[in-house]
Amino acid sequence: MSAGRVLVYGGRGALGSTVVSVFKQASYWVLNIDLKESDQADHNIIVSGDTWTQQEENVCSAVAEALSGEKIDAVLCLAGGWAGGSPASPEFIKNAELMWKSSVWPASISARLACTHLKDGGTLVLPGAQPAVKGTPTMAGYGMAKAAVHQLVFSLADGKSGLSKESLAVAILPNTLDTPMNRKWMSKADTSTWTPLEFVAELMLKWTRNEERPSSGSLVSLVTEAGVTRTTT
Amino acid sequence: MSAGRVLVYGGRGALGSTVVSVFKQASYWVLNIDLKESDQADHNIIVSGDTWTQQEENVCSAVAEALSGEKIDAVLCLAGGWAGGSPASPEFIKNAELMWKSSVWPASISARLACTHLKDGGTLVLPGAQPAVKGTPTMAGYGMAKAAVHQLVFSLADGKSGLSKESLAVAILPNTLDTPMNRKWMSKADTSTWTPLEFVAELMLKWTRNEERPSSGSLVSLVTEAGVTRTTT
Repeated sequence: MSAGRVLVYGGRGALGSTVVSVFKQASYWVLNIDLKESDQADHNIIVSGDTWTQQEENVCSAVAEALSGEKIDAVLCLAGGWAGGSPASPEFIKNAELMWKSSVWPASISARLACTHLKDGGTLVLPGAQPAVKGTPTMAGYGMAKAAVHQLVFSLADGKSGLSKESLAVAILPNTLDTPMNRKWMSKADTSTWTPLEFVAELMLKWTRNEERPSSGSLVSLVTEAGVTRTTT
Repeated sequence: MSAGRVLVYGGRGALGSTVVSVFKQASYWVLNIDLKESDQADHNIIVSGDTWTQQEENVCSAVAEALSGEKIDAVLCLAGGWAGGSPASPEFIKNAELMWKSSVWPASISARLACTHLKDGGTLVLPGAQPAVKGTPTMAGYGMAKAAVHQLVFSLADGKSGLSKESLAVAILPNTLDTPMNRKWMSKADTSTWTPLEFVAELMLKWTRNEERPSSGSLVSLVTEAGVTRTTT
């Protein structure tokens, strides 16, 4: 018998696959939504559609079919990407569009899924970013997309959002995650300030188990110093 | 001889046409960018293109041609729209896409235009919204789009944005503007708290003249009580 059911949006990314792994070890039934299948997940839904509403329709109908009326414990959206560009850069708008598609599309579809399938007292986690709380002049499109995700969390935490009773809606705001890609591209950086993926996955497991929850609507910053990570809201 | 040159994005809307009118009365040369021509403007550019980058290319090349190297005093973006929908609503994502296109596309293209053509000490105004500073559960897509515009202003105010020296980048955050459409759709509302369009236009004229400027990066709230409007940051 499973401990519960969780939906991971982006379960093939570095953080997403760690989350899938941690929840499988904790005996959860895991549904992965991504561009590729996860071997670890119990069920996979491959994202298709070229537009925001097409992706919404395809993903939402496939999830409804897979769950066939069963409620879920958590929706954990870890999909995202990164691209730079100041507002003066020729790449600004091209990259802003990429960031919108890779961050805001999955986050908003996850919000819809949570409103439809989350049980009372469930958990919804969306992917924010610490730098986007202020200006991000060298990555302007990235900042806009993450700021939109942060504001969506404020909306979701309000009683009028349609989210089920006593559910938690939060964004996690990493600074730098300790991923293989970041190790590759920032090989000379001080990794003692990078947040381990396992820490983030265990945090979501606690929240899903209704342990150590922050207030709904929180932007939960992940701060790692000398290899030790703490959360602040 | 003109007092200067300003570019109005959305110069055919209710607020936009008031802004065009006020700047014309103050002897400015006014370039309107909109889906329709403005009779009052000195030059019109009609927005074309189905994608964000197509609109950017079409608008930016037409503006460069119209200005032929002349610097401008202000870029005033007043384009926007409104649509509701909670995250649980079937209209949420459809309307979020509409809001992104009607608010974030013009605001980001205006940011590019400002970085390219604004003189030192120029003015860039983008269209924010007071409710989006917090959650907007019954208009979730609208809130995300406006939050993205607010964050873009923070990026633009940073020295690394590429905006010209000593330029002002701000968002105006109205609550309810006193427009004909709002009068029509909210006919029973208390209009003594609605902000007159002339107040907003005169405010932009002052800033363009380098008078009473707020700090760059400000979200300038427009608060109207008993028919009297004040600004707060």
